[in-house]
Amino acid sequence: MPALNVTEAVLPVTDDAAESPTCGKKMLSYPAFGLRNKYLENVDDDFLYHFGFGLKTVDIPKTFADVKFVCTGGSPTRLKLYAEWFSKECKLDCSENLSKSDRFVMYKTGPVLWINHGMGTPSLSIMLVEALKLLHHANAKDVKFIRLGTSGGVGVEPGTVVVTTNAMNAELNDKYVQWIGGKKYERDTHLDEDLRKDLIALANEKKIPVESGLTMCADDFYEGQMRLDGFFCEYKTEDKFHFLKRIHEKGVRNIEMESTCFASMTFRAGVKAAIVCVTLLNRIKGDQVKIPHDQYIEFEERPFRLVTALIKKYLGIN
Amino acid sequence: MPALNVTEAVLPVTDDAAESPTCGKKMLSYPAFGLRNKYLENVDDDFLYHFGFGLKTVDIPKTFADVKFVCTGGSPTRLKLYAEWFSKECKLDCSENLSKSDRFVMYKTGPVLWINHGMGTPSLSIMLVEALKLLHHANAKDVKFIRLGTSGGVGVEPGTVVVTTNAMNAELNDKYVQWIGGKKYERDTHLDEDLRKDLIALANEKKIPVESGLTMCADDFYEGQMRLDGFFCEYKTEDKFHFLKRIHEKGVRNIEMESTCFASMTFRAGVKAAIVCVTLLNRIKGDQVKIPHDQYIEFEERPFRLVTALIKKYLGIN
Repeated sequence: MPALNVTEAVLPVTDDAAESPTCGKKMLSYPAFGLRNKYLENVDDDFLYHFGFGLKTVDIPKTFADVKFVCTGGSPTRLKLYAEWFSKECKLDCSENLSKSDRFVMYKTGPVLWINHGMGTPSLSIMLVEALKLLHHANAKDVKFIRLGTSGGVGVEPGTVVVTTNAMNAELNDKYVQWIGGKKYERDTHLDEDLRKDLIALANEKKIPVESGLTMCADDFYEGQMRLDGFFCEYKTEDKFHFLKRIHEKGVRNIEMESTCFASMTFRAGVKAAIVCVTLLNRIKGDQVKIPHDQYIEFEERPFRLVTALIKKYLGIN
Repeated sequence: MPALNVTEAVLPVTDDAAESPTCGKKMLSYPAFGLRNKYLENVDDDFLYHFGFGLKTVDIPKTFADVKFVCTGGSPTRLKLYAEWFSKECKLDCSENLSKSDRFVMYKTGPVLWINHGMGTPSLSIMLVEALKLLHHANAKDVKFIRLGTSGGVGVEPGTVVVTTNAMNAELNDKYVQWIGGKKYERDTHLDEDLRKDLIALANEKKIPVESGLTMCADDFYEGQMRLDGFFCEYKTEDKFHFLKRIHEKGVRNIEMESTCFASMTFRAGVKAAIVCVTLLNRIKGDQVKIPHDQYIEFEERPFRLVTALIKKYLGIN
């Protein structure tokens, strides 16, 4: 097999590495944003298949050059809702759905793009690759990516917003695993410390219940998270609690299904990123999500309120 | 860590094992359909979170007891289209979207359910677990699952319908990998031979271009399938062709992103299953999907026409 050039393995390590609140990993500097594919340089067409448009059908630089934030999350309806709330909050027009495919939705409110990513790392990886290609074609600069999600809490109460220090896979490593050409590649995961600290400070200021900790990324919702309410369950209640206790001791505060891919792919591309997930339940107390609708809406608003405060601060919007 | 009871490892092997056209795996008999979770027996409530309804909000036995086929595929729009086509073709009413969540769509046309599964095995696994729980609660009998998908062809022309013999993961094994409690489990993949043979015979009868072969399941669309048009590309054109040639020689005829989970989870649950994917391109000739809209619609129709013929035959619909 050909040797792949895994660039992040040789990135410089910064001085404050020892203080990084990750899975014991040293803190790495972000590389510069730029295309990592010589075959895509200078092409006159590139169709972003899962967005349903490309260089020949949309004036991508004109439409997207001003983008400074890409906000994402699983659900198409929630992302539409977030875009509409942001539009109202910041008095910026909200575009129609710019995605021409039914795989994702995409809304633009001034310099902020809102795109959903579906469930799981494979779906997210497609969205990220096409969003990164979009920003490259648009010649956009200094773009930050933020995932606003829902998650299962580990030892934290429902409604708590967890701002992720780093992502951990189900093998309990801070890596995103890819198989390319029959060979395994483990990519470093990394999130931006400044964004994380600013988010925590703003949450405290706005009295949004917040925790900071590791986020575990599972590849399924039921067995991969040791739920007891799936169709399959070959483990026991005590095995589940043993596992939740074990990951809690490692510093995990919530479980979702996208963080390793998000924290790895953004870092590898050279875009700063943060993950802000509200917990819908405390897995130590149960497996089924049982929140009254009004409270669900209020919980859904918390990551949005926090991220909006951050964006307004960064963009100088009053 | 607790030892898990991996039931499929001790299933009986049938006599015609040597003739199984899979990755060299022996052919296994399907276990009986039934819940594999003692914690979910005799519960008075079970909320299917990603369908947005449960035992307390819908009369599940009344609505779903007659289901005989669950047809699935990635795109919500395509699944709606298939349900509408089937409704017209078989003169059966098409339900409204029965899913109350935006994560999946679900349509019912008589004994056939149409549910989309999004992209990738994590999203599919959620849909399958909740669909299997639904059928258990409904007390449905002898249900068959069919995935109707799109895929990249390997050495086959665009428009060819590939009926899968077995699924192969990106590690090039016929296994679905799960991580549970920090430990790796490799589940057997298996599809029903009778369904496959009937589908091939019907395709020939209806003059639908068809091939039978292994389906490779990748965890991403770009690097995992060695495309040259992603944001990241650290391999060369010749590496891609080397890989495609290698998997073609192993018997792979198409690549998609769900087959291992589908072939493993249905088998483990004891429901017979088949995968019928149309190829949108021949990866040996390029990476971008470039089909005129009319032809795309005609290609999308092929898995539907084939599966409809099968369902009509099995259900005795004229």
